Parts: sequence; structure tokens; C-alpha cells
Amino acid sequence: MALIFVTGNDHKFLEAKALAFLFGIEIVQEKTGYTEIQSDSLEEIVRRGVREVSSKLGAACFVEDAGLFVHRLGGFPGPYSKYVFLTIGNAGILRLLEGVNDRRAEFRSVVGYCEPGGDPVLFVGVCPGKISTEARGDKGFGFDPIFEPEGGGGKTFAEMDVGEKNKFSHRGRALRAFMEWFKGREIREI
Amino acid sequence: MALIFVTGNDHKFLEAKALAFLFGIEIVQEKTGYTEIQSDSLEEIVRRGVREVSSKLGAACFVEDAGLFVHRLGGFPGPYSKYVFLTIGNAGILRLLEGVNDRRAEFRSVVGYCEPGGDPVLFVGVCPGKISTEARGDKGFGFDPIFEPEGGGGKTFAEMDVGEKNKFSHRGRALRAFMEWFKGREIREI
Repeated sequence: MALIFVTGNDHKFLEAKALAFLFGIEIVQEKTGYTEIQSDSLEEIVRRGVREVSSKLGAACFVEDAGLFVHRLGGFPGPYSKYVFLTIGNAGILRLLEGVNDRRAEFRSVVGYCEPGGDPVLFVGVCPGKISTEARGDKGFGFDPIFEPEGGGGKTFAEMDVGEKNKFSHRGRALRAFMEWFKGREIREI
Repeated sequence: MALIFVTGNDHKFLEAKALAFLFGIEIVQEKTGYTEIQSDSLEEIVRRGVREVSSKLGAACFVEDAGLFVHRLGGFPGPYSKYVFLTIGNAGILRLLEGVNDRRAEFRSVVGYCEPGGDPVLFVGVCPGKISTEARGDKGFGFDPIFEPEGGGGKTFAEMDVGEKNKFSHRGRALRAFMEWFKGREIREI
């Protein structure tokens, strides 16, 4: 039975699909919207959202929310990464860090799975790295062109194909944890 | 009967109280939290919030949400002004506008009033102005030190006392519209 990924973001779906394939899981995209609350905590946003949407659909499903947290900027843009990307963009983040030596940042991803009426189960993935001094690459989306993951040989996410990005990425890590759990559960239920 | 203003922000309460006094309305502060959704629309955030909190309290009440919208930054920081203030602050906004001539910005405020089980009534106030080239003044809160309202003689909000700020401000405008409506309604109901 196919697993439902509720997301309006085709890039995210593509990343998840590539990974799910390795686990022998089939996933389908569902673009139904759900309430995202304002919170400093991705976990809280995901918990509320997946509970709502699994009830609305009357089906088990998962959602994912992610953010870029820049140390020197107090965690900004954090849970509001999408809005910040759509307004000030990569150029804005680079500008805020002009002349700044401490360029440490991390991407965080939270995957939430829920069955209707049940309690959400959450999986967290973190990818440490740093903000590059200029945007590079045209793959991926959002802040990918300015983020160099640790262990990525200085490449930005936007310079990696989906498979390579998934090895390092916050979302890859959270999704792998989720899929391992999900497979184990399926097996126990046979 | 005192009117309940649901806000955790003491500065906002002070501004509302000063204005309510002029209308002969007594207001009290209630710090109960409520859900703020992620949305580009302050109206939507307020509508959902005030409906929830009036049900929770079982009493008529009002809430207020505001944001600073900078033209050149695509409306950033907008509905996420509080988070952006707490992370990159005034210095961050000034940095994003370094060397930028178009410094137009506006503060927007939405006041929402709701009775339990009823439909929210909204009042909007806008204050056009511009972002100063440096922070000035120590009154008010948030982005007040970098915002010069139109007609304010080049002063920032943080260089004005509460009474003067209320004359120009987005919040003053929205609150006045609300209080006029509220008084008119009281009179009709006698």
C-alpha cells in the first residue's frame, strides 16, 4: 500500500521518492493544505499539522517541515525559512553575513507520521554545515545554493544531485529514520 | 464592563489603554496564549486566533497582530516581525537596506474582536513611512527605533511618547476604528 506524503513542494516529494525507492516503499504525493502554526519549534508545527491532515484525509500520512538555522543570526530564518526565502532570498542571508567569520549553520528536518485519531510519531534529522560566501549550483531549491554540508567537500546542496544530497541532508536523515521505523513496523505486523 | 485585550505584550497593552481612556472604555489585559498560524495575511492570523481565544475564555475579547512590511524586501518581515526582531533585529533590517534608496515601508495592524461562538470583526490600520538609516530613540518596542512614520517630522516611533505614537500609528488607527465601532454598538444596545 502506498504511503501518502502531504506536501505542496515537488522538490521535497522527489527527494522522498528517491529514498523510498531504496527502502522498497511506494509513496504518493497529496497536495492538501494544512495549518502551519507560528512556533520556534518545527516539532510543534509538524505535530499539529500531521494530526490535522490525517484526520482530514481519514488516512495515515506523513508531512515534513524543515528550516535553516544560522548560528550567528540567532537561529534565523528557522521555521520561517520558506517565507524568508521568498522575500529576501539567498542574497538577503549572504548580506546579513557579509564580513562575518562565524558562518556555521544547520538545516533541520522533522518528519511526522500519523494515523487518523492516533498520536503523531516524529523523526528529526540535522545537517550541520556553513553558509557559503556566494550562491553556487542550480539543483534543489530554497537555500540549497548557499549551504555547504559538513563532509560534502565544499559543495553546496545545489551542486549535488538528489542521491548525493540525500546522503547528507537533514531531510534524508529524518526520512531514513522514518522509513526504517515504518518498515520494521510493517514486518512486525505481518 | 471592562473589555478584554488578549496580549502578552505589555507595550501594546499600554498603547491600547491610553487610547481606550480617551473613549471612556476600560480595558484589562489577559495573557492567555492562542494559536497563531503561519500566513502572509495578518487578517487570517487574527481571525483564527480571536475565534479560538474567545471560545477558550468564554468571553468577548480582542486581539491585535501587527507587522512591518518593507517594500524593497518583498514585504519582509511582515507577519513574522516578532521572530525577525528577536533574531536579526533592527541591525539586520538596516543591513539588508544598506545603500538602498527606496526605504519605503509600512506598519500594518489588525485588531480582531469576537464573542464566543460568533464571527470575528476585524479592523485594519496602516501607517506608511520609511526605514531610517540608523536606530534612534528608546521608547516603544520592536522596530520602532528604525521606523519614521509619514507626517512625523522625521522622528522615529521610538522618539515619540505613547500619545504621539498613537496619533500616527497603525495600531492607534486600528484600535480607534475598533473602539468607535464598539462605542456605537454599546449605544445602540442601550
